[in-house]
Amino acid sequence: MTSNTNTLERDRGILIVLSGPSGVGKGTVCSALRKISPELVYSVSTTTRKPREGEVEGVNYFFKSKDQFEQLIASDEMLEYAEYVGNYYGTPRRFVEETLASGKDVILEIEVQGALKVKEKFPEATFIFLIPPSLAELENRIVTRGTETNDIIRSRMSVAVDEIRLMRHYDYGIVNDEVHKACSKIQAILMAEHCKCDRILPRLEQWIGE
Amino acid sequence: MTSNTNTLERDRGILIVLSGPSGVGKGTVCSALRKISPELVYSVSTTTRKPREGEVEGVNYFFKSKDQFEQLIASDEMLEYAEYVGNYYGTPRRFVEETLASGKDVILEIEVQGALKVKEKFPEATFIFLIPPSLAELENRIVTRGTETNDIIRSRMSVAVDEIRLMRHYDYGIVNDEVHKACSKIQAILMAEHCKCDRILPRLEQWIGE
Repeated sequence: MTSNTNTLERDRGILIVLSGPSGVGKGTVCSALRKISPELVYSVSTTTRKPREGEVEGVNYFFKSKDQFEQLIASDEMLEYAEYVGNYYGTPRRFVEETLASGKDVILEIEVQGALKVKEKFPEATFIFLIPPSLAELENRIVTRGTETNDIIRSRMSVAVDEIRLMRHYDYGIVNDEVHKACSKIQAILMAEHCKCDRILPRLEQWIGE
Repeated sequence: MTSNTNTLERDRGILIVLSGPSGVGKGTVCSALRKISPELVYSVSTTTRKPREGEVEGVNYFFKSKDQFEQLIASDEMLEYAEYVGNYYGTPRRFVEETLASGKDVILEIEVQGALKVKEKFPEATFIFLIPPSLAELENRIVTRGTETNDIIRSRMSVAVDEIRLMRHYDYGIVNDEVHKACSKIQAILMAEHCKCDRILPRLEQWIGE
């Protein structure tokens, strides 16, 4: 969008929050999207865990101490965060804001509860829910993934159904039956969102005057 | 959409109302769209003017007598209508409703005032406004079209600016700088609209039960 010289199309970026139940294929869709939409910026998380070999500050993560992270929480700089195996992980507001201000779209791949926390802090984002082709297919994917017992599978399916019902808090729902189709739909949603009159109207009078 | 077997994607059609100021290129965009999206159904108007040679009932127009047309108006069967050179022209609600119910999307190309009348009767349609690349470019197109005097051109440009300000009543705005780009955006808007959670949620519990 930055290279566009028409006032009406010179738009801020959009934050796309891509979520869905565990096993639906969020990661696969994101990787495929990365290849076909290289202009999309992926949200970089902040963490208190130590960098692993080869990990680069600002590319893989923003690495912070526990004190620093807790200060970011206190000053409302985290769009969401969670603790996992003794470390904090979260989405820093500033990276998202600065990237959007530069006219680039940002995509954040996140589980369902995290997405709902982002919605509280950043309601102007576009929330997309990935839906499995069917519950039977989701169960297949969970079974194929690992060595879970029947009890664990049953419990994970019950969580998935609860999460799917949370789709009512999202803007769009996409059935992930084929990765390339899901990617096309995400691209279409981004294109459509940039055409929304709400986004164009603030620049209309300036454009008429030009 | 009709051929889709997934409950969540088996959706009603969407009415796209494509409008914009005179000279913006609504007809050109519609013709191009017709070629690349043959599954889109074009809204057929009703008229009281006599059929011309080769015109087919239900394809070019629905031909009605003046009495019949006025009865359609009285029974709220016209989404909008206008009188032009002694004849009525309008958009019949039934054709649109039946096509949408069959799962097909309908496109209605119409001038700005007519679109706003459709919005009163059919607010659930998706309203797209075509914007000229610039006002200078719109003036160029109007000048090139005919032999209008300067006064007429000035008056038409003033009407166009007023109409462009009516874009606030629309859902989407598309700059028509290149026809193929405008068509891609309309296709993206249709795809995105079909993914809206509002459209999917009414079928969610049935899908979970399947």
